[in-house]
Amino acid sequence: MKIIKTKNYQELSQVAAMFLIQEASKGYDEKVNIAITGGSTPLGMYKLLQGNLNLGLIPNVHYYNFDEIPLKNKEEGLTLTGLREVFFTPHNIPTEQIHVFNENNYTEFDQHIQNEGGLDFVMMGLGKDGHFCGNLSGTLDCFDEGCRAVDNRLNPTLQARIEFLCNGKENVTDYYVTFGPKTIMNTKKIVMIVSGKDKAEILKQIVSEKISPLIPSTIFQLHPNFIIIADVDALSLI
Amino acid sequence: MKIIKTKNYQELSQVAAMFLIQEASKGYDEKVNIAITGGSTPLGMYKLLQGNLNLGLIPNVHYYNFDEIPLKNKEEGLTLTGLREVFFTPHNIPTEQIHVFNENNYTEFDQHIQNEGGLDFVMMGLGKDGHFCGNLSGTLDCFDEGCRAVDNRLNPTLQARIEFLCNGKENVTDYYVTFGPKTIMNTKKIVMIVSGKDKAEILKQIVSEKISPLIPSTIFQLHPNFIIIADVDALSLI
Amino acid sequence: MKIIKTKNYQELSQVAAMFLIQEASKGYDEKVNIAITGGSTPLGMYKLLQGNLNLGLIPNVHYYNFDEIPLKNKEEGLTLTGLREVFFTPHNIPTEQIHVFNENNYTEFDQHIQNEGGLDFVMMGLGKDGHFCGNLSGTLDCFDEGCRAVDNRLNPTLQARIEFLCNGKENVTDYYVTFGPKTIMNTKKIVMIVSGKDKAEILKQIVSEKISPLIPSTIFQLHPNFIIIADVDALSLI
Amino acid sequence: MKIIKTKNYQELSQVAAMFLIQEASKGYDEKVNIAITGGSTPLGMYKLLQGNLNLGLIPNVHYYNFDEIPLKNKEEGLTLTGLREVFFTPHNIPTEQIHVFNENNYTEFDQHIQNEGGLDFVMMGLGKDGHFCGNLSGTLDCFDEGCRAVDNRLNPTLQARIEFLCNGKENVTDYYVTFGPKTIMNTKKIVMIVSGKDKAEILKQIVSEKISPLIPSTIFQLHPNFIIIADVDALSLI
Repeated sequence: MKIIKTKNYQELSQVAAMFLIQEASKGYDEKVNIAITGGSTPLGMYKLLQGNLNLGLIPNVHYYNFDEIPLKNKEEGLTLTGLREVFFTPHNIPTEQIHVFNENNYTEFDQHIQNEGGLDFVMMGLGKDGHFCGNLSGTLDCFDEGCRAVDNRLNPTLQARIEFLCNGKENVTDYYVTFGPKTIMNTKKIVMIVSGKDKAEILKQIVSEKISPLIPSTIFQLHPNFIIIADVDALSLI
Repeated sequence: MKIIKTKNYQELSQVAAMFLIQEASKGYDEKVNIAITGGSTPLGMYKLLQGNLNLGLIPNVHYYNFDEIPLKNKEEGLTLTGLREVFFTPHNIPTEQIHVFNENNYTEFDQHIQNEGGLDFVMMGLGKDGHFCGNLSGTLDCFDEGCRAVDNRLNPTLQARIEFLCNGKENVTDYYVTFGPKTIMNTKKIVMIVSGKDKAEILKQIVSEKISPLIPSTIFQLHPNFIIIADVDALSLI
Repeated sequence: MKIIKTKNYQELSQVAAMFLIQEASKGYDEKVNIAITGGSTPLGMYKLLQGNLNLGLIPNVHYYNFDEIPLKNKEEGLTLTGLREVFFTPHNIPTEQIHVFNENNYTEFDQHIQNEGGLDFVMMGLGKDGHFCGNLSGTLDCFDEGCRAVDNRLNPTLQARIEFLCNGKENVTDYYVTFGPKTIMNTKKIVMIVSGKDKAEILKQIVSEKISPLIPSTIFQLHPNFIIIADVDALSLI
Repeated sequence: MKIIKTKNYQELSQVAAMFLIQEASKGYDEKVNIAITGGSTPLGMYKLLQGNLNLGLIPNVHYYNFDEIPLKNKEEGLTLTGLREVFFTPHNIPTEQIHVFNENNYTEFDQHIQNEGGLDFVMMGLGKDGHFCGNLSGTLDCFDEGCRAVDNRLNPTLQARIEFLCNGKENVTDYYVTFGPKTIMNTKKIVMIVSGKDKAEILKQIVSEKISPLIPSTIFQLHPNFIIIADVDALSLI
């Protein structure tokens, strides 16, 4: 585990952007498979890149969304819609370099990733409950699972969260899907970006508490190439 | 996880030797930290190397013994004694490139490894109970532990095993030490060599059973660079 | 040799920026030595980076100016002054990561580079006479030379050029200095950025003409990792 | 340029063998293209490998002979015959991993190498006249040439040499073929093995004399990854 401290969110976004570019640029030499994150923490990074750099110019980089919340009566879910807006569309990433993960293909997706050569890099955020991707605390019994579906109605908290994210009950489907712990752990390099005082307590926990599915990101204590990029606020308890 | 199938023990030893040379040779360009195994499975590999190739010629390679069973009234334990005989001495590995791990330094050894830049490579065998290094089934509650000591009298089976290995009760001390799951999982590349029909059942289990401290090597299902080199006998159930 | 075609100067600047970031980001893992260019072609790249990304955040990256035209009565020469303005100062590159090359140290600079571990990356432009760094056509007899000084009064063309660059005869000193062909050829990865119709003829020559000190950049036909990033205008004759 | 000093021919052979294994073993992860040498210097290395290690077990390694002296009325020439005997046959290298270079395909062979992804590694000896591969002093006007044919009757010395190597005038054809300086310089990593007092003078020359086609191996002063493995006798003048 390696921790890179930045003095604020702006610097965190800059460092994250440079890590993403470093991995994507390997596409000039070889095939690269990258899973990237939606959510709020990376928005600063995506904004820095927009209009300045153009990752769509790099060949051989394949992108994967690592979770998806399907929307009723919509062809594409929340995550993909968000990634298109902040990254795929502004950078003109060619369609054949975007690997859509969703409720229709999640059972075969670990095999698909393996056929493509395995994941080289994933960039993700950290939830206040210690979750990564869609592996929320309370949805996970163990770390054995690969790509998986989670019942949106598992408990009231989850249900409320999903309804909020989907902007209303009427848009919610029965399940969301996510890369599981096994899928992510089998990635060569994992970067987690963490910002803000309200993440300080959970960040402390995932690096020092006992490994447990109740705090899903504790599992990264066992990964040989896990890098946390965090600002001073997020690191204030470490 | 990647499985390399060899047609017999001789080929397994050759492939293992080439993996070891590949890693060690990086010492011509940079510092490399390698943990290697005693035991019976690698003997064929060490024999192939003796008198033919000389790994002691390579600079910047640092070797670590990943477990140790101390012997009463002896300065060095079983593992180190064995490694000296089959590898360190015939190859004239310089003393300053051998990092001795034992009962006197195990509490600070994870820190020592980190100070040295982290482990790049480990080569190890597989026990019939699914153990790796000295992490025998029944000695492990979870995967959180780094370098650790195990009480030789924990249970009668263990006690008997240690007495057998030490060639008599009178040579046994109270504890043996081993790199724990966290130490090994944090290594960049892990190679496990497995030979023979009597390992077929446990090999099948570690690649396909639920991850559990009861079958310690199941944890490697979560490692991004775990390579099994096994002969057809060991792979006969997969 | 590898040629990356971009559709215009803007795209060329984006691709060049991503190559620079890719190399510099290696500083998070190891020491990196990078020689970068002043001049007009990279200005677009430096502009893209300013205010958006901050390469000064990356540790272990060492920067070198690969040529220098000293200015009379000034402490620093033209190249360094330019690089400070467009790159070192906006990115807050720490002083100890900037290796100043000038008329006072050029005779020992090849040794200095070697002591630092050798150059990993150089980014440079292409002159209309085929020059790279300060190795102008007519100043070079062979490709054997490392860091070298060139007499500004060698011929009237050179003299006029230097006076123009220095903004007047009164600012010109006797010599300028430059990394020579041997210094640059010994770099692991060389990127040359070329833009515009007026470079099309010379670009064609350096990739296809006989290797000769009269067209200095022809020597890169012999480099195993030479990458040209050029826009369609510069590539219009290839 | 990097020089690795060994204390005698035996150690030189061991170090060379480890370099070859290191490169070939990359075949477990990616495609690798390796050009290897016949001649007398590597015989010790090939002997060490025979019966001990088996490079034929490694997938994705492609081998190339870098020169060839055709033999009258024989299907295969001197170099390939030799390489089969000391390396390809004992290691059971699969036919599809051996790329035969000869008088029938030399004009298209640079293109062939490029189509295969470029050479990653070449191991070669040093001639007393400073030659590498078949680029003997006196056969080369410049360093621009790729794969080339040389007239065996170019001069009496060459003619005598070829007749000697072919074991009689009656076996000699009109031309031999060789990878040229451009082919070799474009290789990512070049290892030259040099043994014995009678190579000391020429070894000194190639590392310190002016670059010239008259001493062909002087060109490697310009290569960023050129490694000399030499014994103390060969290095006695440096």
